[in-house]
Amino acid sequence: MKSSIKIGIIGFGTVGTGLVKILLQQKDLLLRRLGLPLEIASIADRDIERDRGIALPPGVLCTDAAKIIQDPEIDIVVELIGGTDPAKQYILGAIEKGKHVVTANKALLATYGEDIFQAAAEKEVDVGFEASVCGAIPIIRSMKEGLVAEEISAIYGIVNGTCNYILTKMSEEGKAFAQILQEAQDLGYAEADPTLDIDGADSAHKLAILANLAFGTPVSLKEIYTEGLERVSSIDIDFAEDFGYKIKLLAIAKAANGEIEARVHPTMIRKETLLSTVGGVFNAVYLVGDSAGEVLFYGKGAGSLPTGSAVVSDIVALARNIIKGASGRVPATAFTTPSRKQLPIKAIEEIESLYYLRFMAEDHPGVLSKISGILGENHIGISAVIQQGRKTGGHVPLVMMTHRARERDVRQALSNIDEMDYVSEKTILIRVEGDDE
Amino acid sequence: MKSSIKIGIIGFGTVGTGLVKILLQQKDLLLRRLGLPLEIASIADRDIERDRGIALPPGVLCTDAAKIIQDPEIDIVVELIGGTDPAKQYILGAIEKGKHVVTANKALLATYGEDIFQAAAEKEVDVGFEASVCGAIPIIRSMKEGLVAEEISAIYGIVNGTCNYILTKMSEEGKAFAQILQEAQDLGYAEADPTLDIDGADSAHKLAILANLAFGTPVSLKEIYTEGLERVSSIDIDFAEDFGYKIKLLAIAKAANGEIEARVHPTMIRKETLLSTVGGVFNAVYLVGDSAGEVLFYGKGAGSLPTGSAVVSDIVALARNIIKGASGRVPATAFTTPSRKQLPIKAIEEIESLYYLRFMAEDHPGVLSKISGILGENHIGISAVIQQGRKTGGHVPLVMMTHRARERDVRQALSNIDEMDYVSEKTILIRVEGDDE
Repeated sequence: MKSSIKIGIIGFGTVGTGLVKILLQQKDLLLRRLGLPLEIASIADRDIERDRGIALPPGVLCTDAAKIIQDPEIDIVVELIGGTDPAKQYILGAIEKGKHVVTANKALLATYGEDIFQAAAEKEVDVGFEASVCGAIPIIRSMKEGLVAEEISAIYGIVNGTCNYILTKMSEEGKAFAQILQEAQDLGYAEADPTLDIDGADSAHKLAILANLAFGTPVSLKEIYTEGLERVSSIDIDFAEDFGYKIKLLAIAKAANGEIEARVHPTMIRKETLLSTVGGVFNAVYLVGDSAGEVLFYGKGAGSLPTGSAVVSDIVALARNIIKGASGRVPATAFTTPSRKQLPIKAIEEIESLYYLRFMAEDHPGVLSKISGILGENHIGISAVIQQGRKTGGHVPLVMMTHRARERDVRQALSNIDEMDYVSEKTILIRVEGDDE
Repeated sequence: MKSSIKIGIIGFGTVGTGLVKILLQQKDLLLRRLGLPLEIASIADRDIERDRGIALPPGVLCTDAAKIIQDPEIDIVVELIGGTDPAKQYILGAIEKGKHVVTANKALLATYGEDIFQAAAEKEVDVGFEASVCGAIPIIRSMKEGLVAEEISAIYGIVNGTCNYILTKMSEEGKAFAQILQEAQDLGYAEADPTLDIDGADSAHKLAILANLAFGTPVSLKEIYTEGLERVSSIDIDFAEDFGYKIKLLAIAKAANGEIEARVHPTMIRKETLLSTVGGVFNAVYLVGDSAGEVLFYGKGAGSLPTGSAVVSDIVALARNIIKGASGRVPATAFTTPSRKQLPIKAIEEIESLYYLRFMAEDHPGVLSKISGILGENHIGISAVIQQGRKTGGHVPLVMMTHRARERDVRQALSNIDEMDYVSEKTILIRVEGDDE
């Protein structure tokens, strides 16, 4: 019988600091829940001088991650440095040494998850990654264990707090994207370089992980159609409001007929839905299962303590397996390895959706007829139109909501429409979800 | 190595039928997730003649629950008959035989949970009860495993779908309680005898279970202050709306300074909150943890398939423990037995809250002054008042929102006010949550 579970932590940044604070401050609570103490054996970081406001025993801090990987005393290695290199080498090295691994690294799992899970299965060690998606929300655990009976048909996630903060503020305050982004950076809600958040890549990483667990299939990041916030403007947020919608950056995955959809893009959803009410930096994941029906999980998707809390939940789960000799109790990918199937991901052109289209067109007779004619030729039905009042001399927005249409047809129609002389800008297209026709 | 996990089911009613449907229809999916088949060895029910639309092999159905408990082949006994007797005897009997148990029986667990958990710990078997609280929402699992690092300070739950349906409809349609209840019964959303739902007892059962897991303390049902929907009327729903609130039947538990609060009553919460948006028969649990912050779980709290899905999640969890020899991996009550502490539950008189008070008083000069005077003498500050226009000859509603006050003081003040000649009815009191002063 072990007397403690020894943890080695690689990366003492924001999440690492939150993790260590929780392990120290909740030492008693964790002992009461686990029955054995969790011991921080070693923490590796390039910077071991900075004051993080945490008192650690001498000898715990080091600069050499290899020391942790090699240490035969350490049971669980926690990787919190982010990025793919050298995080991948550290994790594979720890697995090779027979150590269990906890990681918060969504980019790594979305890219090299299969390699890591396969290596872990071969060495019969566990990999926990609750913290990689939606911080404090126990979504990974819920998908792998709570919703185990569910054939999941759809996932809609608000999985990037920075984007949700920006969209919430744009909607509430009517300010422009760039201004809100600046404010978010000043408040620490957006990174100095927010590219991965804003362009949807971070959401795509998380969606790759969720879709993998939901459908039992490897999901290649490059097959996830990804569109960020760049083209969302206040005018579209206002029109959405007029039609009864909010705009959210959604990570969407669906399964039907042996095929899946996986895509990230700004999406209009009905104002009455719970998901549309999720504001600020909060995350939420809405799932549809065949027996459970609709389930929603909501909480803080990022931050030192919320993400640290998710890491601790994995450490405790792995520690429970260590104590009981039960590693591999739950397959890392929610399905046993031989039963996973490679399901095809639909190209974006093949999906069907409702669409919001905003044309910027000359306000003269015949334009509406011409545009709707081209849509009609491409099998796109119109359910609502807003044509704004005359502006002297300029182009005015012409907004249409479509019936369900195929993306390929919509793209074809828009490429024709955008070539027309009296259309002054590339047409704005926003997909609409949740309206059953 | 076992070739299958054998399940015995006691009770083939609504939830039992849902469970069996899922086990049969999702046989492949469950095999892909668990790695071993789940086999329905036996189902006991008083009525084995009724057509439930399910084809079962001959010999599976029986009328004698004892047969299941005695069967040495059966690994997991699922109790779905509800009520305390004979459910308790069946469960204790199965545990005595070394079988693992899954139950959806909240009344039993709220009353005899400690006996059952103790017996299970002694025999080193597992007891799963995900289905006992909020059907398809994986709240038990999330509290025991996902939020393991959290010191939970507050739980606010909409845990009874019948009550939430009635309140939602009263709010949306302005109809009276009795009429909506009748409609709910016609739609199958309310039982023929809805007493346990309407009077808050069902919510109190669920709260006893949740508070136990959150705080590591046995919670005695009789110490949970419980008030049902009986006194909620459309007029109060309308006034709540005027002040910016919705009325929900909330199950509330809080912990501070080594004491807990546990109470069920109609509660006003701000319209902007996610919890207030939870409508119809849906359930939601909102938790506040010290690291995770606010977390919310939402889904279907009842029904054949949603509850059946929760039962399956427990069966799979227990099966995983059986396969790995890891029974007792997670303590049934989320805390190891020796570390649990009996925390005192505050009497309702000792709590502090904001209050909505509706007096029915004669509309004559001096009444407002007299009533507010009595409140003031009892240390109750008023934050807002609505005094409705004169009605010829009758009593009119006088509505006040208070600052934070002690319940004991409020009760004292109301007992004085209700004795006054110009007050015609017992004053309506509704507690208000979520407003930080």
